[in-house]
Amino acid sequence: MPISAVPYSEVDVLVIGAGPAGLMCANALANARVNVRVVDKRPAKVAAGQADGISPRTIEVFQSYGIGERLLRESVQVHQAAFYNPSSSGGIELTSRAPDVTAPSARYQFEVALHQGAIESIFLDSMSALGVEVERSTMPTSIDISKDENELTDPASHPVRVALQRLDVPEGQPQEEIVHAKYVVGADGAHSWVRKQFDITMDGEQSEFIWGVLDMVPDTDFPDVRNKSLVHSNHGSALLVPREQDRLRVYMQLEDKDIIDPETGRVDKERIGPEELLKVARRSLYPYKLNPTTGILWWTLYIIGQRVASRFSIENRVLIAGDACHTHSPKAGQGMNASMNDAHNLAWKIALVVRGWAEPSLLSTYESERRKYALDLIAFDKTFSTLFSGKPLTEENSDGVAPEHFMKTFQKFGGFTSGIGVHYDPSVAVLDRNQELASGLVVGERFPPYKFIRAADAWPFEIQDVLPSDFRFKLLVFTGDISDPLQQTRVKSMVANMQSFLNRYATPGESSENPRFDIITISKGRKEGFDFLQFPALLRSHWSKVFIDDADVTGSFGGKGYSYYGIGPEGAVVAVRPDGYVGVIASLDHVEELDAYFASFMKIPA
Amino acid sequence: MPISAVPYSEVDVLVIGAGPAGLMCANALANARVNVRVVDKRPAKVAAGQADGISPRTIEVFQSYGIGERLLRESVQVHQAAFYNPSSSGGIELTSRAPDVTAPSARYQFEVALHQGAIESIFLDSMSALGVEVERSTMPTSIDISKDENELTDPASHPVRVALQRLDVPEGQPQEEIVHAKYVVGADGAHSWVRKQFDITMDGEQSEFIWGVLDMVPDTDFPDVRNKSLVHSNHGSALLVPREQDRLRVYMQLEDKDIIDPETGRVDKERIGPEELLKVARRSLYPYKLNPTTGILWWTLYIIGQRVASRFSIENRVLIAGDACHTHSPKAGQGMNASMNDAHNLAWKIALVVRGWAEPSLLSTYESERRKYALDLIAFDKTFSTLFSGKPLTEENSDGVAPEHFMKTFQKFGGFTSGIGVHYDPSVAVLDRNQELASGLVVGERFPPYKFIRAADAWPFEIQDVLPSDFRFKLLVFTGDISDPLQQTRVKSMVANMQSFLNRYATPGESSENPRFDIITISKGRKEGFDFLQFPALLRSHWSKVFIDDADVTGSFGGKGYSYYGIGPEGAVVAVRPDGYVGVIASLDHVEELDAYFASFMKIPA
Repeated sequence: MPISAVPYSEVDVLVIGAGPAGLMCANALANARVNVRVVDKRPAKVAAGQADGISPRTIEVFQSYGIGERLLRESVQVHQAAFYNPSSSGGIELTSRAPDVTAPSARYQFEVALHQGAIESIFLDSMSALGVEVERSTMPTSIDISKDENELTDPASHPVRVALQRLDVPEGQPQEEIVHAKYVVGADGAHSWVRKQFDITMDGEQSEFIWGVLDMVPDTDFPDVRNKSLVHSNHGSALLVPREQDRLRVYMQLEDKDIIDPETGRVDKERIGPEELLKVARRSLYPYKLNPTTGILWWTLYIIGQRVASRFSIENRVLIAGDACHTHSPKAGQGMNASMNDAHNLAWKIALVVRGWAEPSLLSTYESERRKYALDLIAFDKTFSTLFSGKPLTEENSDGVAPEHFMKTFQKFGGFTSGIGVHYDPSVAVLDRNQELASGLVVGERFPPYKFIRAADAWPFEIQDVLPSDFRFKLLVFTGDISDPLQQTRVKSMVANMQSFLNRYATPGESSENPRFDIITISKGRKEGFDFLQFPALLRSHWSKVFIDDADVTGSFGGKGYSYYGIGPEGAVVAVRPDGYVGVIASLDHVEELDAYFASFMKIPA
Repeated sequence: MPISAVPYSEVDVLVIGAGPAGLMCANALANARVNVRVVDKRPAKVAAGQADGISPRTIEVFQSYGIGERLLRESVQVHQAAFYNPSSSGGIELTSRAPDVTAPSARYQFEVALHQGAIESIFLDSMSALGVEVERSTMPTSIDISKDENELTDPASHPVRVALQRLDVPEGQPQEEIVHAKYVVGADGAHSWVRKQFDITMDGEQSEFIWGVLDMVPDTDFPDVRNKSLVHSNHGSALLVPREQDRLRVYMQLEDKDIIDPETGRVDKERIGPEELLKVARRSLYPYKLNPTTGILWWTLYIIGQRVASRFSIENRVLIAGDACHTHSPKAGQGMNASMNDAHNLAWKIALVVRGWAEPSLLSTYESERRKYALDLIAFDKTFSTLFSGKPLTEENSDGVAPEHFMKTFQKFGGFTSGIGVHYDPSVAVLDRNQELASGLVVGERFPPYKFIRAADAWPFEIQDVLPSDFRFKLLVFTGDISDPLQQTRVKSMVANMQSFLNRYATPGESSENPRFDIITISKGRKEGFDFLQFPALLRSHWSKVFIDDADVTGSFGGKGYSYYGIGPEGAVVAVRPDGYVGVIASLDHVEELDAYFASFMKIPA
């Protein structure tokens, strides 16, 4: 067959893999109006089982894409954690209960659980409304990046060549397609084909611990079957997570005798099935009974190492995300969250580069930000796994894990496991020089939620809801109290300077509003007498853009936003990245300092 | 044509009219799994304009049918009211702003605005999912009720005969159908055909005031264009209501010279059109400018009397609802709310009678409850209209309406206009004898919202969300603190008595759970140590049925429900009607008193 007979096409971004990372990426790109295709070799999305836990930060991220409401509607909320430990009469007993989430600034003070198939459906429906569908039964068979330096540095080029094979077409029809892409995202799982093509190594160790998982609708007298239960027994550890439709997921630690072939000393998956796993679960939960009412709905074994890919990117043209970059234990429920947040971090950077608004070097921050996070995750996982898998403290085990110590560790890591405390170090995308102007808004961390009153109609708005994950930087102008003449003068001069800044990044001949930036004004003031029309037009491109830091009409919340964010009466300007992270802070008097940040990666239109 | 050639059918309930009242009724009946048809002579739903304001209580009602989330997503919220009065320099000026809603117990401390077509769509989609579609271009041509006493009293009979004519079928096809219905609901508007067939009179007066209405997207410097603005000027009164998609609705009082033909002294609608209305609006709003940016989107004139139908029912077989029962001015935004709440009050009563669970006499409470409300509405409307239409207090008008007096009156009526304060008098459906057991739960008023913690998983739940508008009575068992042995004994004996009560209303041979009742348990206790399995099975038919009066895991709300509801440590049982209103309260020691209530209308299964 001559080469010309193979269909050939171009695309801005090709996403390989339609699991949570790939779908988050494709949906985010579709949302940012980027030309994207997503392929997956599997003929259908997962139907049951797999990952299920969504952390508080990930719920915020879903909300920022307009899909949080549906996630909350379909999922179950986990508010409380219960800790069980050996009782004096044999078996286990409740030692304590504590909030499942310990991250005071989280918008959602709970985790949610929902099976992976339902989560994928949320993305699929969102993408579908934007005209993007997953191409299934489609696998890549080769991938190459051009070695031509000019091509690699030309933003308009398509230097990645991927051969795709369709697995479900009738014989005689073309099965192969050559796609030339500007960027390829490998989100193809722990055994990533993309990663292997570029010989990216996974650094770290194979796990010492082996875990089994069971899904069921239980008949049980265990009182915490609807809380997250962390069970330390003398017969192994177990983690119970409530699920939608009265289901329960049980993670349980397996002992060598359950799974190791004594003759070879190696793991033998044939030695254990759902019935054996159920026995292990019952042993851990004794004296409580555990009976699946409608059988075992799903089960699996985890024998995964704690490893991180040595690189996340090849030439900033092929980037890998999700399980392709990091594997670890399922215990803290981080897997799917880490994967989706990789994609969330990556998508806006690709979108800005593809639009020609940002230098390709911006993409380097993907690896620097997310690989560090992955290494932190592995370190956390090792600490937590060791505690979780350790024998409980008993008279016989005087060096075992004390219940109190375990619970405190669980809470101490709350900022990390919730995703709220994730911190990105300084880079071209994070400039931390004016941190003191807004001590509550940590540069490199996500913009924390607070409710402000919209000036025009006194409608209380969660400020995160005016920071959607799109392709725009949000410039939040905290004006202070402009009934103070000095502050009014300051704001006026700031507006003039900001206008010059915006003009520099404006495409000549385009409309006056700069599509790269969304300006939101947050003033001090009282809704009873405030007139939002007093602001210069730049600060109120629409009546909905002006907020005041005041209590709601019932006086039950709000009014302390400036102090919560650590912003003084002199105000500040805060640039929030499209992914919701604080990029830079400037004073009203030196708004040109925004330039120091944006000039490091943003292109000036020709 | 022989009579047998006309198609003939039977239906449990035929709803005539698919406006807000008819759709609320049909959707509620579909929700209660009642066999219902709904016809409307118009070929399509309204596309724009018409009613738009939804009161806090009506939002609660939408929520109870599972359609509140969509209403809140599509509508705009009105949190603040602004009061404008004549300024010393001519024209008007802002006098004060105040909360738009003054009903402290309201779950939603705001109104929402959305055009009637969008509201109808919410019902249509909900009904469609339940298999009910509106039959359009279909009008009734005759209606008769059987005069046979046996037929009228037989719950299985279909004593109402309605001839329907299809207006949109090709010539030669059958255009007529005879429907025999158990019940007919006439929700066919202010000029109700159903009402006229039974010569039901409308009592009251023709209005003295004539109002015009304009919808537009305004270009304006009026600072309160996104608040509800009540404008008293020396050139007439106006009411401004913000709407979705940046729209504004302006209601304005017309003066005789605008609309009365001086020769005949009668209203002449030809004298005024949108251009004249815009002039009137501008006159009221001077010195602020008002320019429609995309033309006048909709306009109308209101010349409606303040009148109430003398009867709401014929033989409890034909019932009228909505504008067919009451007409009044649009100023307090009550029209659509009153109409939908008529239907909400009626639907569950019809559902229970059709199911054979309730005596037909229950239906008499529809007229007694809703006609009294309509009379109160008219009385309120007269007071408010007079104030609203009155000349403002000025030097020349020393007996004019003082701004302060007007604002106070607006707030004083907050309980009424919000719908929260609606109170139904004692009847077979309202028994107020044990009010002192729960002083915060007023018998005959809607069950007020509060957040309780679900015992099994510490998930904070708005208690109204476990009181859906279906066909079941909710029995809320406030057990008190059952770690107190005395209280535990009391609860045990209550459970035995409640079981006998339930057995009496159980259909022999049916499953143990009585479909007429849903039992919800609300205990005192602390989530850290609570075991919901300690309750007798009757009080926890499912793990999700047990709540505790405790603060949430972050300690930011909850834990004061007993005191808010005025329930002492001895507890109480509260029966909530399917429409969310408190029907009766009993003590745990005399749960047989529930019988005194239910025996007055509920049938014992044969």
